[in-house]
Amino acid sequence: MRTAYIEQMGAFNDTLGDICGRSGVAMAKATNALLQADLAIAEDVITGHDEIRTLSKRAEEEAFTLLALQAPVAGDLRVVVSGFQIIADVDRMGALALHVAKVARRRHPHKALPEEVNGYFAEMGRLAVELAQSAREVLRTQDMHQAAELEEQDDAMDDLHRHLFTVLMDRDWKHGVAAAIDVTLLGRYYERFADHAVEIGRRVVFQTTGMINGA
Amino acid sequence: MRTAYIEQMGAFNDTLGDICGRSGVAMAKATNALLQADLAIAEDVITGHDEIRTLSKRAEEEAFTLLALQAPVAGDLRVVVSGFQIIADVDRMGALALHVAKVARRRHPHKALPEEVNGYFAEMGRLAVELAQSAREVLRTQDMHQAAELEEQDDAMDDLHRHLFTVLMDRDWKHGVAAAIDVTLLGRYYERFADHAVEIGRRVVFQTTGMINGA
Repeated sequence: MRTAYIEQMGAFNDTLGDICGRSGVAMAKATNALLQADLAIAEDVITGHDEIRTLSKRAEEEAFTLLALQAPVAGDLRVVVSGFQIIADVDRMGALALHVAKVARRRHPHKALPEEVNGYFAEMGRLAVELAQSAREVLRTQDMHQAAELEEQDDAMDDLHRHLFTVLMDRDWKHGVAAAIDVTLLGRYYERFADHAVEIGRRVVFQTTGMINGA
Repeated sequence: MRTAYIEQMGAFNDTLGDICGRSGVAMAKATNALLQADLAIAEDVITGHDEIRTLSKRAEEEAFTLLALQAPVAGDLRVVVSGFQIIADVDRMGALALHVAKVARRRHPHKALPEEVNGYFAEMGRLAVELAQSAREVLRTQDMHQAAELEEQDDAMDDLHRHLFTVLMDRDWKHGVAAAIDVTLLGRYYERFADHAVEIGRRVVFQTTGMINGA
């Protein structure tokens, strides 16, 4: 029973890591689509989103099976329950990558971003992908120190996000309200994406602490 | 055992409904703070948010207790697991009301909103509160028809949100980029608040369907 549980739990965590990794890849592509006004890449992210949703549903089923057949207690129970919450996080990360791709598609053949904020989004995109990769690693290793590092990576994202607003609010902003709205919403998508990655780290810490206290 | 489970489950659903109701009240107050540039009300929402967070944590503990002590199976298990996801929704609704209150506080003593979009936000606020109340009702009654009505209420929110953008993009917009950014983010907060209320309805349908299929 215990061996079966450990195997199933490992498979479940692999699925979560897989979705997390895919959300990161989707965000990397969406950022490219945005910066290059590349419709084909944007479409690729949009159609690929179904796969992330399918995997999320499969992960939920795996978690239900774990609960129903293994009836885990204490720390193990916390791990599975956190798993449901992590599914919601990675699923939402995928949705936010989708939002970015949709903005790129909506503005094509034009670029959604004025030249002067390209650098911000290139960097926020890089950080988002890095955060998704770190979250994936944390899911695999269950390493609490790595989980804490996610918060630092997120600080860098928050800084960029704040600076972005100072660029927007500058009286030299010459790109009008429509571009400002796009930039505002896009900034928010990246920032929320990062928040969910950090949340995954927190949940892994909770899982691990739960296991130490409960097992 | 079964009686204890039903009692505890009832208490758990009451807690969820309570948090949902409080998030609705918080959004009602935050909307007032925003429309009237009322700092005292904004502060009230901001300090009151801790209570919502405390209740969310208590609800999670109740759900863990249910899982650990009652070891529910099939439909009952789905109800408890959905419960964890509903906690995340109501908790997020509270956070979004908090965001609105913070914008009102940041702009005080000025109004964050230009006069011409006041009507939109008064109406989005009203809808948000209505959606929170409906979600609370659905949690109490577990009525699938009421749950479906949430989607219709949300359609009205989406319409308002879309119209709001046409006002912003209009070349007659005279309030500059800073106000446009506030309006864009605020619009998104109300729209996401509504989405979470609808999500609660969907989860209750899943709970109910799960019970029919699984019990």
